[in-house]
Amino acid sequence: MNEVKIKRVLISVSDKTGIIDLARKLLEYKCEIISTGGTRRILEEAGIRTTEISAVTGNPEAFGGRMKTISFAIESALLFDREKDKKEAQALGILPIDLVVCNLYPFQKKRTAGAELPELIENIDIGGPTMLRAAAKNYKWVATLTDIADYPGFLTELEQRQGKTSEEFRFELMRKTFNHTANYDSAIALAMDEKSSIKSQRLYFTNGTKLRYGENSHQEAYIYEDPSCSGSLAALECLHGKDISYNNILDIEAAVSAVSGFPQQAVAVVKHLNTCGFACGEKQHQVFEQAWSGDPVSAFGSIIAFNQKLTLQTVEFLQLNALDKSVRKFIEVIIAPDFDEKALSYLKFHKNLRIVRYDPARMQKEIEHRLVYGSLLQQTSDNRLLDKLEQVTISEQNDVDSELVEFGLCAVRNIRSNAIVIVQRTKDNICRLLGMGTGQPNRLISTKLAIDKARENLLREVTDIEIAEIFATCILVSDAYFPFADNIEIAAEKGIRIIVQPGGSLRDKAVIKRAEELGVQMILTGLRHFKH
Amino acid sequence: MNEVKIKRVLISVSDKTGIIDLARKLLEYKCEIISTGGTRRILEEAGIRTTEISAVTGNPEAFGGRMKTISFAIESALLFDREKDKKEAQALGILPIDLVVCNLYPFQKKRTAGAELPELIENIDIGGPTMLRAAAKNYKWVATLTDIADYPGFLTELEQRQGKTSEEFRFELMRKTFNHTANYDSAIALAMDEKSSIKSQRLYFTNGTKLRYGENSHQEAYIYEDPSCSGSLAALECLHGKDISYNNILDIEAAVSAVSGFPQQAVAVVKHLNTCGFACGEKQHQVFEQAWSGDPVSAFGSIIAFNQKLTLQTVEFLQLNALDKSVRKFIEVIIAPDFDEKALSYLKFHKNLRIVRYDPARMQKEIEHRLVYGSLLQQTSDNRLLDKLEQVTISEQNDVDSELVEFGLCAVRNIRSNAIVIVQRTKDNICRLLGMGTGQPNRLISTKLAIDKARENLLREVTDIEIAEIFATCILVSDAYFPFADNIEIAAEKGIRIIVQPGGSLRDKAVIKRAEELGVQMILTGLRHFKH
Repeated sequence: MNEVKIKRVLISVSDKTGIIDLARKLLEYKCEIISTGGTRRILEEAGIRTTEISAVTGNPEAFGGRMKTISFAIESALLFDREKDKKEAQALGILPIDLVVCNLYPFQKKRTAGAELPELIENIDIGGPTMLRAAAKNYKWVATLTDIADYPGFLTELEQRQGKTSEEFRFELMRKTFNHTANYDSAIALAMDEKSSIKSQRLYFTNGTKLRYGENSHQEAYIYEDPSCSGSLAALECLHGKDISYNNILDIEAAVSAVSGFPQQAVAVVKHLNTCGFACGEKQHQVFEQAWSGDPVSAFGSIIAFNQKLTLQTVEFLQLNALDKSVRKFIEVIIAPDFDEKALSYLKFHKNLRIVRYDPARMQKEIEHRLVYGSLLQQTSDNRLLDKLEQVTISEQNDVDSELVEFGLCAVRNIRSNAIVIVQRTKDNICRLLGMGTGQPNRLISTKLAIDKARENLLREVTDIEIAEIFATCILVSDAYFPFADNIEIAAEKGIRIIVQPGGSLRDKAVIKRAEELGVQMILTGLRHFKH
Repeated sequence: MNEVKIKRVLISVSDKTGIIDLARKLLEYKCEIISTGGTRRILEEAGIRTTEISAVTGNPEAFGGRMKTISFAIESALLFDREKDKKEAQALGILPIDLVVCNLYPFQKKRTAGAELPELIENIDIGGPTMLRAAAKNYKWVATLTDIADYPGFLTELEQRQGKTSEEFRFELMRKTFNHTANYDSAIALAMDEKSSIKSQRLYFTNGTKLRYGENSHQEAYIYEDPSCSGSLAALECLHGKDISYNNILDIEAAVSAVSGFPQQAVAVVKHLNTCGFACGEKQHQVFEQAWSGDPVSAFGSIIAFNQKLTLQTVEFLQLNALDKSVRKFIEVIIAPDFDEKALSYLKFHKNLRIVRYDPARMQKEIEHRLVYGSLLQQTSDNRLLDKLEQVTISEQNDVDSELVEFGLCAVRNIRSNAIVIVQRTKDNICRLLGMGTGQPNRLISTKLAIDKARENLLREVTDIEIAEIFATCILVSDAYFPFADNIEIAAEKGIRIIVQPGGSLRDKAVIKRAEELGVQMILTGLRHFKH
């Protein structure tokens, strides 16, 4: 362990936060402090004696500050090999510098603030990266501090080692330094590309952790975190249960996205990234029961997301402590913004259940990225619900339950295309997904699937005869237009009376005409919701 | 347009390719060439007179080459503002340098070659990035050359402007320079993270082009290219037809991935990222017809991928020039490694059809990335097909058509979970997808969908009675295990006699027992193929 005593320090910082305290501490360790321009002024005003950089470089600070530190003397002092080059350094009169404290001109800040090119150019730091990179390269003897957040840890190290740093510690500072200069020049490169109307993306992820496996056990997998994002799925708080798996992450994203944005209680039951149960309303426990009722078979082993704090009354529906084990409702993941204490204790009856807390405010996506062969796809998220609610059938013009329509659109846009949903307002005033069809290359099959599931669900609650009555109050929502009237015919035959779709087919007229003939009220939204 | 005459040049390159020719040309423009160590030796040996860097810096090349260029003199010569700082530079005796030719120590090359830490550290260039960054910052007067590929363009510029460069040209060099230093420090940061067992990813994409829209018309979208990847989907060659859309890209990836790796002809028909038609065999036109037969309704408007050069005989099946317009088979995209000339002309009958050429050798993915909230998921691709073909039913132990099994596994792993396929070997010895079920939260529904589609397809070819006979020769393949025997019961009832699945359920025994009772031969592969 190569410990190095810090004797001579160079401080040149753009952001002066914490610099006086740091310098004071360094003085306690009898360090000589070399400093530049503005930094030096502040330190001297605080009564800290420093050596002017010019006294070391032998050159003036020149060209409006463009030349301050860069010099044979400074970079030699940082770069020379303390063993191999010792004599050469002595002969050249180079004294080692053991620590560089330097943060860079705030390029990214200026960029974000929309600075014009000349101001951006002035904020490209040249001397800073040179010093930091030179010192980092020579990390075996030299320490670098470029992040203010590292000052306290650095002082702890000095304290523990009586003014020295370990090689391990300096390696870590070096690693951070090169990440910092990489990020710095990435920001410059992106800004200059932008000025040239070249669109580039530099995505940086770190802290990759190994997942047990990928989508399948023969696939090795990792999850990495975007350090600039505070709501990272990689940093989810798992309060209980098994480790979160690769597939869990995908399902969690789908489930959380489904329940986001609802002012009322909303619950989504997700299997293979598709919402198979979904409800919203005032009372959480009722909403949960209705979400479950959308597909009570598939709900076993599902991922369930809530948009509000979970209560005991809600989770008791899972009957996790039932004596009859067969009635216990086992699920894979439950995710909510918070859990009241009793709810949490109750959920822990389920040993393997992953109980996950998330911050809904943070999980809003404006932009989505997708990686395909050698390429990055980017799109704005599908955050708009509808453009209009245009009644296009003349014979049927009843008022439509617009809240239920919007609920249906929220459901359908989170289900993979071709997607059809049937939604219902229950007697308890809860909007629920009664049945859905997904993933079919042919829309007609999705329609059939949605109707079959809705019937199956209702048959548990009412008689066959009552189903037609209920269907007449339900709304069928399609994620895209109907290319043919066959979908309408099937729906009408089963008793569906209200259909919502974006419209936009060449055959819209024929489809609408057929709806009219069949007594089906049709409403166009003007907005397609394909999801793949 | 601020044109600057190149009078004084600094050349210091690690990769010496093309440097002598470049220097000779610069001499023709009467440039003074300042040079360092190895570069200077090579130039002088070629009879090119140069100024030794030490004569400018006033310092020796020191510390085993760690200090060569960094100096007040050089960086001042690069950085000073030719207008504002003119007098100050004169007073300080600084002569401007107008061009830096510099490429950096080959850090990434050493890293790829598996160099140990000390060698990596020695290959971190300090002087080079300093010069390049200083010169680039001062691009209003100074030019930078860091990419050998830019030498010819640079010489053309000099020729056109009689030894001068335009500001526009220098801006472009500056932009490339900062991209270069960003990439350089990114490589260093990644290597140092790696040495610390920190897993990081820095993904760089450029040349973003706007797509007409995203998944839906209210979503704005771009596609970016990974400049290090030669098989980028962003750079696909579209020979004819409308622009490739966002959804086309996704479908193309799915379709190409489905047909990759087959030694025979393979064709995939894709809709909403799912394979709804799929076949392989010897004769391309037959294979295409059989792929189409998997879902002749959904095949309209689909994306179709081939793995071999397309012939006229094959594409004539589309009947694009049929007098009866209703029999013309319109599709969205046709993608193949190549097209014979007649096939291409024929396809062009279809005005809007996107005809796309791709290189199958390049589109192999070993690693897949997926972006979720603030995180990057990475997994090795699902490139393994099976671990075993274990016959687990005792009563039925007939030899199984292992090629057909593998075909079925290839099909099922490219279809979204829960996925079930039924595959058949036709009389013409073609393996085809006869029916598939996808995207269902409940496996049973996928099984039903696959059987229904297979029946529907067969009914176009044979009588109802013959279907059971054919089903007995088909293979049903599941992407994951069967949680219950109900799937087996339904399949057996319809006449399916061979089922392939990974196994691994707690209830495997019960499921296998039921298969035996029903006279169904069951084979376990040991490998699940979830796809989401």
